[in-house]
Amino acid sequence: MAGLQREETGTLLSFRPSIRVIDATMRDGGLVNNFQFSDQFVTSLYQANIASGVDYMEMGYKADKDLFDESAFGKWKFCKEDDIFRIVGENKTPLKLAVMADVGRCNVERDLGDKKNSPIDMVRIATYINTIPAALAMVDWCEKKGYETTVNVMAISQASEKEIDLALEMLGKSATRTIYIVDSYGSMYPEEMRVIGEKYMEAGVKYGKQIGIHAHNNQNLAFANTIECTALGVNYLDATVQGMGRGAGNCAMELLLGFLKNPKYKLVHMLKFIEKHMPEIRKSGAVWGYDLPYLLTGVFNRHPSPAIRYIKDKRENIVDFYHEILDQE
Amino acid sequence: MAGLQREETGTLLSFRPSIRVIDATMRDGGLVNNFQFSDQFVTSLYQANIASGVDYMEMGYKADKDLFDESAFGKWKFCKEDDIFRIVGENKTPLKLAVMADVGRCNVERDLGDKKNSPIDMVRIATYINTIPAALAMVDWCEKKGYETTVNVMAISQASEKEIDLALEMLGKSATRTIYIVDSYGSMYPEEMRVIGEKYMEAGVKYGKQIGIHAHNNQNLAFANTIECTALGVNYLDATVQGMGRGAGNCAMELLLGFLKNPKYKLVHMLKFIEKHMPEIRKSGAVWGYDLPYLLTGVFNRHPSPAIRYIKDKRENIVDFYHEILDQE
Repeated sequence: MAGLQREETGTLLSFRPSIRVIDATMRDGGLVNNFQFSDQFVTSLYQANIASGVDYMEMGYKADKDLFDESAFGKWKFCKEDDIFRIVGENKTPLKLAVMADVGRCNVERDLGDKKNSPIDMVRIATYINTIPAALAMVDWCEKKGYETTVNVMAISQASEKEIDLALEMLGKSATRTIYIVDSYGSMYPEEMRVIGEKYMEAGVKYGKQIGIHAHNNQNLAFANTIECTALGVNYLDATVQGMGRGAGNCAMELLLGFLKNPKYKLVHMLKFIEKHMPEIRKSGAVWGYDLPYLLTGVFNRHPSPAIRYIKDKRENIVDFYHEILDQE
Repeated sequence: MAGLQREETGTLLSFRPSIRVIDATMRDGGLVNNFQFSDQFVTSLYQANIASGVDYMEMGYKADKDLFDESAFGKWKFCKEDDIFRIVGENKTPLKLAVMADVGRCNVERDLGDKKNSPIDMVRIATYINTIPAALAMVDWCEKKGYETTVNVMAISQASEKEIDLALEMLGKSATRTIYIVDSYGSMYPEEMRVIGEKYMEAGVKYGKQIGIHAHNNQNLAFANTIECTALGVNYLDATVQGMGRGAGNCAMELLLGFLKNPKYKLVHMLKFIEKHMPEIRKSGAVWGYDLPYLLTGVFNRHPSPAIRYIKDKRENIVDFYHEILDQE
């Protein structure tokens, strides 16, 4: 797809063919179940994504086995080519495959060979704002090897406007194709998201980059923020099945497919998958979704980790937690 | 409060003193548990609303006992004055009390005496668009008896623009003080809500009426739609604790209190109430909240009743349900 142009963003009864839906269930959802998805589940999700018209399926992380003990995680933390091939074969489908590579936690020069030998189409490079130079080195390597790349700048709700401007300029001048807005803390309201989205769109138009959105649901706004960005012209839309993702989770795929008017998206296949396969994920003990402690970390614009611990420990003293969050100032 | 003026709507770091938060938990939530709230629960909610700075507490419906069997419902379906007095005493607090009266299902001339003998401050009159004349007769009665009134026009997502214009003109010229936007089917997206909200606001400014918003969460947008209306100048904001309400439920009170910057609103007291008292409501068998069948009735702009049945019957054949909804055309 060509770089971003100012185009008609569409109405509620029209659609933009340039929209791309990315299923991040195995990657962001993998953070909830330690990437322990059965091959049967992954195969069914792969087929559901194809039937639903989803554009990209993120298989997990491309983590460095020198930094993470392989026996301590499911295999989708590492996304070896052979594991992917076993699910997708030659993947003669319109569904493209992605992996996420975290700056400082992967070794793409060693672990990603030429695209022509790999089932992976896209590498999504996750970075904090201060590690963008390292992210750009990864962009160069991956693009040179034939992969599409995106750069996902995390935790921007704690960055200054000046930092975001500088980041967008660096990313704009880089070889990456898509720049992601990431509301890591689920702290942004739609009226803020419109301001940020407009800023990213300006950079996208200026430098010919696509813009993406990855939202978190701490304040139950992940879907709302995603469709607000869509209305601005943001084309790369992340979602996860039933919002499965770290902490409060993400924009729910079924909500997004229900909203988009592009004829290729077919909600009902995703609903069928959810009803058949998501109960086993819940039964396995995976817990995610909006809850009171996530609301508090969202309202106060904090990393969700204390809220994740609160839920994990089954605490029932939200007033104490409220004080703990305030005491972190 | 005076009628609506065009005023500064505020920024994310300012607030409008004219905002009013209405707790509709016992009324909309009562539809989920057949109005079977214990006096202890109601007293605790009343105290939590006062501590949290909530402006109005809706105690339930003022239903006509000639039309509903009193033994088949909890007492908050009927909201007799004595039952309210037993909870609130003389209610020497800033929290005002409301009841809802459904056109065609109540008898306000018989059941509502003078305000000076009643604990009720506000009567919220729920009407479909075709029964507005009957609603206006109730407005006249209630205002004459000394009550504040609102008119809540339901199911507007299925009304034509012309009908809404006519409704707003009639309501504008009436004695009611507040006109509510009601997204009964949870089918509206924020970009539609902004258009509708602007239309209601124009009428509010023209006729000196306040505007309110009552949202449903079928597409997980109740909170987002509520704060979008707030940004337009809508001042009367309905919410329920944990979104407890029919079907997919409502805008969650805790999300709304987390968003509003008015110093009088104190989220932490509501969180404490939720943690202490809402588990008993869930344990009693009350079920509400976003789920797949509500998504479908929302997407297709339908009454949620088939989705409520789907959940109640514990069905697990969402594809069949999808066909059933489409076959209703």
